[in-house]
Amino acid sequence: MARINDNYLKLQAGYLFPEISRRVSEFTSANPDVDVIRLGIGDVTRPLVPAVVKAFHEGVDEMARGETFHGYGPEQGYDWLSQIIIDKAYKPLGVELKPSEVFISDGSKCDSANILDIFDLSNKVAIGDPVYPVYNDTNVMVGRSGKMNEQGYYEGIIYMPCTEENGFTPQFPSEKVDLIYLCFPNNPTGTVATREQLKGWVDYALENDAVILFDAAYEAFITEDHIPHSIYQIEGAEKCAIEFRSFSKTAGFTGVRCGLTVVPEALTGTTADGERASFNQLWNRRQCTKFNGVSYPVQKAAAAVYSEEGWAQVKGVIDYYMENARIIREGLTAAGIQCYGGVNAPYIWLKSPQGMSSWDFFDKLLHECSVVGTPGSGFGPSGEGYFRLSAFGERNNVETAVRRIREKWGK
Amino acid sequence: MARINDNYLKLQAGYLFPEISRRVSEFTSANPDVDVIRLGIGDVTRPLVPAVVKAFHEGVDEMARGETFHGYGPEQGYDWLSQIIIDKAYKPLGVELKPSEVFISDGSKCDSANILDIFDLSNKVAIGDPVYPVYNDTNVMVGRSGKMNEQGYYEGIIYMPCTEENGFTPQFPSEKVDLIYLCFPNNPTGTVATREQLKGWVDYALENDAVILFDAAYEAFITEDHIPHSIYQIEGAEKCAIEFRSFSKTAGFTGVRCGLTVVPEALTGTTADGERASFNQLWNRRQCTKFNGVSYPVQKAAAAVYSEEGWAQVKGVIDYYMENARIIREGLTAAGIQCYGGVNAPYIWLKSPQGMSSWDFFDKLLHECSVVGTPGSGFGPSGEGYFRLSAFGERNNVETAVRRIREKWGK
Repeated sequence: MARINDNYLKLQAGYLFPEISRRVSEFTSANPDVDVIRLGIGDVTRPLVPAVVKAFHEGVDEMARGETFHGYGPEQGYDWLSQIIIDKAYKPLGVELKPSEVFISDGSKCDSANILDIFDLSNKVAIGDPVYPVYNDTNVMVGRSGKMNEQGYYEGIIYMPCTEENGFTPQFPSEKVDLIYLCFPNNPTGTVATREQLKGWVDYALENDAVILFDAAYEAFITEDHIPHSIYQIEGAEKCAIEFRSFSKTAGFTGVRCGLTVVPEALTGTTADGERASFNQLWNRRQCTKFNGVSYPVQKAAAAVYSEEGWAQVKGVIDYYMENARIIREGLTAAGIQCYGGVNAPYIWLKSPQGMSSWDFFDKLLHECSVVGTPGSGFGPSGEGYFRLSAFGERNNVETAVRRIREKWGK
Repeated sequence: MARINDNYLKLQAGYLFPEISRRVSEFTSANPDVDVIRLGIGDVTRPLVPAVVKAFHEGVDEMARGETFHGYGPEQGYDWLSQIIIDKAYKPLGVELKPSEVFISDGSKCDSANILDIFDLSNKVAIGDPVYPVYNDTNVMVGRSGKMNEQGYYEGIIYMPCTEENGFTPQFPSEKVDLIYLCFPNNPTGTVATREQLKGWVDYALENDAVILFDAAYEAFITEDHIPHSIYQIEGAEKCAIEFRSFSKTAGFTGVRCGLTVVPEALTGTTADGERASFNQLWNRRQCTKFNGVSYPVQKAAAAVYSEEGWAQVKGVIDYYMENARIIREGLTAAGIQCYGGVNAPYIWLKSPQGMSSWDFFDKLLHECSVVGTPGSGFGPSGEGYFRLSAFGERNNVETAVRRIREKWGK
């Protein structure tokens, strides 16, 4: 008798983004002529930059000729790509890594979900609240939690509320935890962590023999010089942290699919026998057995992101989105709406006007302004009453959205 | 204290293919001038066909312009690709499917590994022996087994030995099982299942409320008309089977990455409460939460495989490889080496000459003929004394390899 994984039944009916998608489809079907502006799902809108397109085509052309054809690549990604990432994205931060510590993948959503494979179920997990839903849901799916309680928390998972009062910064959990998810620049709140705050987490993890799962998917959007881009800028982090990065937002790869995970060789965990074991070796084994590497032309395209020409072009697109962020943040703030984030991150975290609930504001915004955002409560109970707007969009759409919101709710 | 997943420590030191790769690297480093012919890992060697290259480029070009740019796609793949697969690959077999039953992925290795996510750990699993190592190793990694015993079997997994005596065909397990992996055309033995044999398995699964995980990655290599290409050609299979397919071998996509998994809506399993639940919904939830879809240009390229022009070109490449298979099979048979497979599959399963062990023959073949194959014992204890040669290679290499083997071992 084939038994299903019952843990899936504990999950809320809809994963956040499919639910948004469903409501938007319903609205657009009923209102086919309305011009809906989508600042919800956090998807990029600008095309791939020319240097990336050129390298992508070259990669395809190589696949068209026997002499340059590539079959199976290394499950860990090509060394030349790992080396470029090390040289261009880590060395300038003063971070030393080896190619064997960098694992190229088809995206950091997959990696931040699959990473749980190498951890024992007994580990206690701490996540932010609000939080990127994947961290929470994958822990529920693997059986690390009980049911969801009335507040919207799953039993057995430790939540770190991020509220206006604490500046949307997670505080150290009161009980001992083994795995800590941190995401900076944060999705959804757009907040960042200072060097001192990150040092606090690294010290905490080292003291408690915990592992930090550090999601740096938005590091390219940091504009302030003193904010760290990588957890490895903190001394000792190589002994307690795994870092996820992505080309999705950095270079518009949401539909192209490329990310990477750093698992330092110095990072170890405890076996049932009390020995130490290397997480790098475990992740390597996981990837070799359950993954088959990233598309060759995609890896060629990813490498071009860090060429001199490519980076200048990519940086131009990032600046474009960050100008959108400024327009949203300043426009709504001027209209009396309380906004957070948007300075070092492409997300603006705003307080729903008139004390509305997150989903009420979602529906009102959709039906009365034809603007799609993301309800804060979809990211966790502490997100209730908040709302995320994404800076990923075309300038005229962003300007129109801000104008419509101001006309509707502005003072 | 972060605890590792101890199940990983039960695994044999090296996953088969990395171990082969290590030995070959060692040999080529020591003998840099020797021309090594690789018929081991089962990787394609012919370039992508022109129709696929054209569509791939067009997909990249769409990503280069704002009006045609694609960000996040559906986690399940684009409906237009699912529909093409249904129309071109399933309808001609008399199999009716809906796009919601087809999940596009980055390869069937990933899917056949990740599928375990939606099954309870208590399910008893049956796998062939020899077998594609991923089925075995992923079950060990998830904790469904005990340690490996002296024979090379993991406690708790039910093995179905495929031997010369039973024509390399798995027999029904003597104990009750819940999950059954079947792979036809088989990797590594190259054998196929008749309609009657598959009907036996479907009837068995329906009677026992078991689920068949059917790996059809090599279906495109079937040359005999009476051999089924899909488990769904058998009545009732939609209630008891999940099918994996891949563009890897069919269209040379090993370095491009695209596959698909069919999870019929009629397929259900049992919950802890004894209710029935839909595996289609569980897999959909798994993919939405842990996967982010396949690269857009890759999906465009995959769609072109089934265009009229594309399929004719792809078929030409398949025929090329199958001619290689014939050359290997007939050449070695004529030299007195016992060969199986190679008629409906790109693999030849041969008995090591002179009663050599699989790894002894591997080393001898590498060092004395400079030919790389795959030791049968790497696929399971019943593979000991056997050896897999792949038909994926350039014609002159295949001919040279056969000549070298005949000169060395031929009668």
